[in-house]
Amino acid sequence: MNEFVSAVNRGWRACEQRIAAGQTHLPDMSPPAAQSERTLVAVSGGADSVALLRALMELVSATEHDCRPGSLVVAHLNHGLRGADSDADADWLTETCRALNLPLVLEKQELTSQQTGSSTGLEELSRSARYEFLIRTAHAEDCTRIAVAHTRDDRAETVLHHIIRGTGISGLKGIPRVRLLAENLYLVRPLLDLGREEVVHYLQECGQEFRTDASNTDLRFTRNRIRHELLPYLKTEFNPAVVQALQRLSQQAEEVTEVISADVTQILNRATLDRNRETWRLDCDQLLDTPDYLVKQCFLKIWQEMHWSRKRMGFDHWQRLLELTREGQKIHLPDQIEAERRERLLILRRLPDRTET
Amino acid sequence: MNEFVSAVNRGWRACEQRIAAGQTHLPDMSPPAAQSERTLVAVSGGADSVALLRALMELVSATEHDCRPGSLVVAHLNHGLRGADSDADADWLTETCRALNLPLVLEKQELTSQQTGSSTGLEELSRSARYEFLIRTAHAEDCTRIAVAHTRDDRAETVLHHIIRGTGISGLKGIPRVRLLAENLYLVRPLLDLGREEVVHYLQECGQEFRTDASNTDLRFTRNRIRHELLPYLKTEFNPAVVQALQRLSQQAEEVTEVISADVTQILNRATLDRNRETWRLDCDQLLDTPDYLVKQCFLKIWQEMHWSRKRMGFDHWQRLLELTREGQKIHLPDQIEAERRERLLILRRLPDRTET
Repeated sequence: MNEFVSAVNRGWRACEQRIAAGQTHLPDMSPPAAQSERTLVAVSGGADSVALLRALMELVSATEHDCRPGSLVVAHLNHGLRGADSDADADWLTETCRALNLPLVLEKQELTSQQTGSSTGLEELSRSARYEFLIRTAHAEDCTRIAVAHTRDDRAETVLHHIIRGTGISGLKGIPRVRLLAENLYLVRPLLDLGREEVVHYLQECGQEFRTDASNTDLRFTRNRIRHELLPYLKTEFNPAVVQALQRLSQQAEEVTEVISADVTQILNRATLDRNRETWRLDCDQLLDTPDYLVKQCFLKIWQEMHWSRKRMGFDHWQRLLELTREGQKIHLPDQIEAERRERLLILRRLPDRTET
Repeated sequence: MNEFVSAVNRGWRACEQRIAAGQTHLPDMSPPAAQSERTLVAVSGGADSVALLRALMELVSATEHDCRPGSLVVAHLNHGLRGADSDADADWLTETCRALNLPLVLEKQELTSQQTGSSTGLEELSRSARYEFLIRTAHAEDCTRIAVAHTRDDRAETVLHHIIRGTGISGLKGIPRVRLLAENLYLVRPLLDLGREEVVHYLQECGQEFRTDASNTDLRFTRNRIRHELLPYLKTEFNPAVVQALQRLSQQAEEVTEVISADVTQILNRATLDRNRETWRLDCDQLLDTPDYLVKQCFLKIWQEMHWSRKRMGFDHWQRLLELTREGQKIHLPDQIEAERRERLLILRRLPDRTET
């Protein structure tokens, strides 16, 4: 029994459990199937994604494991960012999939740094192009899961990135284990508890080659500077187990966020009098003994459910809204939102857009 | 109206509000007085503590502010760690207090690195000696508050230190604003929202001198390496406002921890059947729909209230205890604690120590 494959089996099971419990990012959609029929595996050709692919292949047929990713389809998007190197990766993957007898969907989209002007913009653009391609391909190939190869190390890098850039508790979750992308289509991350060393060790055992992406060492990208400079510095100078420390912190942030989110749902259910497409009416008396933090989280959730712009709401807006539950009459908020208090009643509504003809 | 003094006034008020609300680390003790009669100010002679002292002096007499720290007593512990330099600091402070017409309690305790063998141990030893001295002096001088000069920068350093070393959400609070030290004796930190630049600017305005502690630049101390190496590196390479980002994160961690703590108290009140000095009995049915994280936090609180050793409880112990609320009969835990389930009843008790005669 291979240890790495067993760990991926546990990782897959954790994803399915989370899907079954509906503990995903869009909890209001229909419950999923227990196991996938077909899984799209996103493979760049790097060590992590190649190890994921090989381990999932073993799970498809192995009788000693309980997880079944169903039949596999490999997906690869070639941005052409590294010219001939990118094409060579795509050729290598084509050969590898042929040898492994796996279907491959390959697409080439040319992205250049001229399109965005900055390396940060380029990082974001290639990320969103990749997800658009994966979702489109999953639909075309009838897949209910998209498996991606993020590891414990990726999670630690993300958490560290969020902390330095500025984040709240929910940002400490880093990379979620599961994300609902569309109805009955889930992004799953079965390697999230595994580290890069285990990945490389497994590939050596299999005798499986992989590609090294030269842009991974491009220090213009913030992520790469965290990976190649900051984390090694923290490991050497402060704590050799800093990745594990960040991993535990993000797990706890995930648990705490779920508790808070359940509290918020309960309070909001109790305080909501009625709602429709433009208006949400609350009973302020129900919010009186609620801690400030939870009241603000309730408003955040209302904004989310009403599809009102949260980006344009600053700290001061949320604070004024909180204060309005206790005193005051009417405030005007970004995105044409008006909040009005009449006695214990708080009415939140979006005014008709005057710029429309 | 001096801006810095106004900010210290706000900081002091935030401390008193927290004390009045009982939102401190030992919430079961008697409610405090609203304002201090006498305050002990811990002064090293460095910029932060000298600025705190000068601002508190202004608050004592200023009519335009609402906070009254009462009459002030200055406290200084000389560890003699830096030989003649330490003595010179003590002499300088003696002169300064005489000029400012303030009572000073000065004590000399020789600490050497031979006593501990390591710089980490020395850091910890000098910290605990300092707090022992402050509490003893506060009692002797009839003070109800001990004011210390930790700033936003100290808080950011602590949060970063905890993150790297490994911490849960509650460790992200970094430095609490208020800490209950003994009955009606509170440690308060009125500078916690202020930065080092504001401190230095205020001292320049006052024409007030201060001492520079050479050991603050000693890079053997982890704290100093975070201050002088890691934070400047993060500011230059990643985010100039990283201190503010850490400050916001720790404030949110404080709010979230309070919410969780209220949840835990509520669940525990509902689930507790009875308790005495040796035994705590719970109704498992009351824990059935409670998230795992909160159930574990309930057990942590029980251990805390029963004065059972939490240090010897590992992740696996808490996990087995959680599982026992759902199935199983009896488990043995460190510190002679036994957990037994009979139907829906869970009995936690400490067995009599067999090694006693």
